[in-house]
Amino acid sequence: MPVTSREVHLVRRPDGAPVAEDFAMVMTEVPEPGAGEVRVRNLLMSVDPAMRPRMSVGQALNEAMMGGAIGRVEASRNPAFKEGALVSNRFGFREAFVSDGKGLSPVRDVAGVPLEAHMNALGGPGFTAYGGLLRIGALKDGEQVFVSTAAGAVGAVASQIAKIKGCYVVGSTGSDDKVRWLKDVAGLDAAFNYKAAPVRQQLRELAPKGVDVYFDNVGGDHLDAALASMNLLGRVAVCGMISGYNEAGARTNVRNLSNIIYGRINLRGFTAADFMDLRDEFQSNMADWLRDGRVKTHETVYRGIENAAAAMVDLMAGANLGKMLVRLAD
Amino acid sequence: MPVTSREVHLVRRPDGAPVAEDFAMVMTEVPEPGAGEVRVRNLLMSVDPAMRPRMSVGQALNEAMMGGAIGRVEASRNPAFKEGALVSNRFGFREAFVSDGKGLSPVRDVAGVPLEAHMNALGGPGFTAYGGLLRIGALKDGEQVFVSTAAGAVGAVASQIAKIKGCYVVGSTGSDDKVRWLKDVAGLDAAFNYKAAPVRQQLRELAPKGVDVYFDNVGGDHLDAALASMNLLGRVAVCGMISGYNEAGARTNVRNLSNIIYGRINLRGFTAADFMDLRDEFQSNMADWLRDGRVKTHETVYRGIENAAAAMVDLMAGANLGKMLVRLAD
Repeated sequence: MPVTSREVHLVRRPDGAPVAEDFAMVMTEVPEPGAGEVRVRNLLMSVDPAMRPRMSVGQALNEAMMGGAIGRVEASRNPAFKEGALVSNRFGFREAFVSDGKGLSPVRDVAGVPLEAHMNALGGPGFTAYGGLLRIGALKDGEQVFVSTAAGAVGAVASQIAKIKGCYVVGSTGSDDKVRWLKDVAGLDAAFNYKAAPVRQQLRELAPKGVDVYFDNVGGDHLDAALASMNLLGRVAVCGMISGYNEAGARTNVRNLSNIIYGRINLRGFTAADFMDLRDEFQSNMADWLRDGRVKTHETVYRGIENAAAAMVDLMAGANLGKMLVRLAD
Repeated sequence: MPVTSREVHLVRRPDGAPVAEDFAMVMTEVPEPGAGEVRVRNLLMSVDPAMRPRMSVGQALNEAMMGGAIGRVEASRNPAFKEGALVSNRFGFREAFVSDGKGLSPVRDVAGVPLEAHMNALGGPGFTAYGGLLRIGALKDGEQVFVSTAAGAVGAVASQIAKIKGCYVVGSTGSDDKVRWLKDVAGLDAAFNYKAAPVRQQLRELAPKGVDVYFDNVGGDHLDAALASMNLLGRVAVCGMISGYNEAGARTNVRNLSNIIYGRINLRGFTAADFMDLRDEFQSNMADWLRDGRVKTHETVYRGIENAAAAMVDLMAGANLGKMLVRLAD
């Protein structure tokens, strides 16, 4: 029996920040799986800042948005996937879909860890933070670290890994509530609201010994401020530049770049593809850290695919604390 | 007997491009060397783009400019330095000086190589090009390479090392004459005059396979153009950002920086301090390359300290081909 699935399509390219009218909900029919196929019902889907540049270039119009999700196999004619199994997939923004199994991977059960963690600290955001900080940023124990969007999914994990490594950690975020969370829950040494005063001034005050590693999720004024505070031989691990994502062509103005010459600074853009060899080590360490409470995470969870577009709009406005997810089914 | 020496002082901080009035010639008396001291008469001095940011910050006013030079010991009461020996030093912009020997190093005689080469391909510019390209840029044989200010001292050597390594090399420079030199003498695959059309457009046409390594001496529009052409896992070795040196605070606008994320680009500022371990290897290789004509160099040589300030002004206006030097004595 075919089932119905609601999908969120991108119907026009956002002009600046995305708005509800850039998206449309479309009802589709999902057939029974054919030979070698499975039908998956999504349970949780990710809403991620990196989706914003793809809305300008890459994401097809009038098709379902691409994005990470975890679903349950509800019908299978593929021996590799049993009915009832949980699979992570790149077919978010839809309730159900049929697949030949390519791009589906089993979700490992980790005792004591909720499903949400697999899309947060134990999933892509956590892995990005882990490899970005330790491999790309070449973090050494006890260094001076600055993390932007420190209360976001990747930033929160990066900040706490740096704390585990004995570093002095300053985080920036967009509200006083998030500043409190960073200091009181995540245990950062210092945190500031970037809307309250110029980033450069706040960073200089809160990082009096300068910055050895800057984990950049923002670009723009944050990167400029970090470059003005970087210590000799400092490293900038560039994970994202959300400050430019709503501008035409995802452009970012940075003026202090020449500081990298005499500071002998290494500025390196990366994706998780740069350190896939760390995958097992990461999963083992992070599962331990989550269980013993050394990494604390937070998710902002909207319910129902009818709220997926709103989650994207609100994410880009900074409404989330931690990972932004949409729960599609239980 | 004391001797007289003329020195070039910085008397005010340049507002934009340096002009003759920013400098003054001052006559000084240089005493006989005391115990442990030597008196050096400079023969050749360097004029370098990196001096421009120091004129805004670092170089004291109403003192002789600092800069590299090669001189001859003309009186010695220090057994480490014989009279007549050639020594490289950081006391350019003056005809003679007394030193206790600190910061003086002997110039190794290299058969078949003129003294000028020790301040060009065999000296600081050549070493900066060598380590910057091979260590910082991690150049691999046969890659696609872009070098800015390719007809300048560092750029000309970097371009030709890349050719020796079997790379496809595109250079940018500021006049049609220099374009011809790069193609006809230095043997680059392509070269363009950045004043003739937008850098981004010319680079895209002349580097149809993209850029794996960009050796940056310019920043600004050149770096932006390179970022738009960089291949996956490309490297940018940032040696200088001359485009910003005449602006307040040596600032540079770069807008395409977010390209480094998905391109997984490594952008690294450096000085020769990053690869001092390559010194012997460099000197041996470069002496060979100069002797067998695989590296061709050019110097623009002004005569007399009375023309040192003009050399600085003209360098920043791009009047030089190759290394800018001032010959102070024979």
